[in-house]
Amino acid sequence: MKTAQAGWVYLVGAGPGAGDLITLRGLRILRSADVVLHDALVTPELLREARPDAEIINAGKRGYCLGSTRQEAIHEALIHLARAGRSVCRLKGGDPYVFGRGGEEAEALAQAGVPFEVIPGITAALGACAAAQIPLTHRAVGPAVVLATGHHDPDGPDCTLDWESLATSATSSFT
Amino acid sequence: MKTAQAGWVYLVGAGPGAGDLITLRGLRILRSADVVLHDALVTPELLREARPDAEIINAGKRGYCLGSTRQEAIHEALIHLARAGRSVCRLKGGDPYVFGRGGEEAEALAQAGVPFEVIPGITAALGACAAAQIPLTHRAVGPAVVLATGHHDPDGPDCTLDWESLATSATSSFT
Repeated sequence: MKTAQAGWVYLVGAGPGAGDLITLRGLRILRSADVVLHDALVTPELLREARPDAEIINAGKRGYCLGSTRQEAIHEALIHLARAGRSVCRLKGGDPYVFGRGGEEAEALAQAGVPFEVIPGITAALGACAAAQIPLTHRAVGPAVVLATGHHDPDGPDCTLDWESLATSATSSFT
Repeated sequence: MKTAQAGWVYLVGAGPGAGDLITLRGLRILRSADVVLHDALVTPELLREARPDAEIINAGKRGYCLGSTRQEAIHEALIHLARAGRSVCRLKGGDPYVFGRGGEEAEALAQAGVPFEVIPGITAALGACAAAQIPLTHRAVGPAVVLATGHHDPDGPDCTLDWESLATSATSSFT
């Protein structure tokens, strides 16, 4: 049974909402970590799984208002806590590497030389489609699926998404 | 705590390989079901979680050789077992609705009027990238990710994937 180690950061995917959609590996880290630093999207049901003496830090942000400074503060907190010898569960909604800026947190940890591990979670698209009984792929009609951010303004100067291609590429014979 | 109900089929995602990457909800169904019908990709470690008196059925297929007849046999087995009043855990590698024909199994169950539930799992792309510490998306360089089947011959007459669009659509500003 794998438990949280001193000086390590674990980027743990909490899954799409319901507390029982976390993985067993994620739950074990959550239950053993000294510190739990969590998103606003994480259900309180999961936070109750933390050790009674664990430090719980709400790092939630909603929308754009808090900007990148807040994200950098999260990086600094993770690095500081790990360097102080604590085991840190960074609990993120969905999957750490599908949107949600887990990649940036991993980069910051790697650059600081802090050891970390990524524990995948059920990303919202998979959770929602399972609940709605809508297959994301199907041999007959859907050989691919695209997960795209909803936070890009399609008419904005910084948008790198080609929405037209995305809409047609996966089912090109049906366009 | 949700357990498997008589006459129901649960399409459960076992995750990408390691036994502790199943969700808590999936594990509870696996531990309580009368019958476990599993893929070849499911680890033996997970099958040991089934009830000691559970019936374990290996429905694994590898590659194309067994064709669609075998898939129909799986549908018939699921329907037959549920109609006999048993609780059935259909344990599938990865996520039931990302490749792996879970959508076809759900269709067959719905058409037969058999109640079923889909419990999502960590699909291989998410599991592999977490292990390799490669973010699937990134605000700066990857605002979308495409999951496409590897079982389409790009030059075959039946291929509906536009590989060129898929390769460029998600990062169009970089092409």
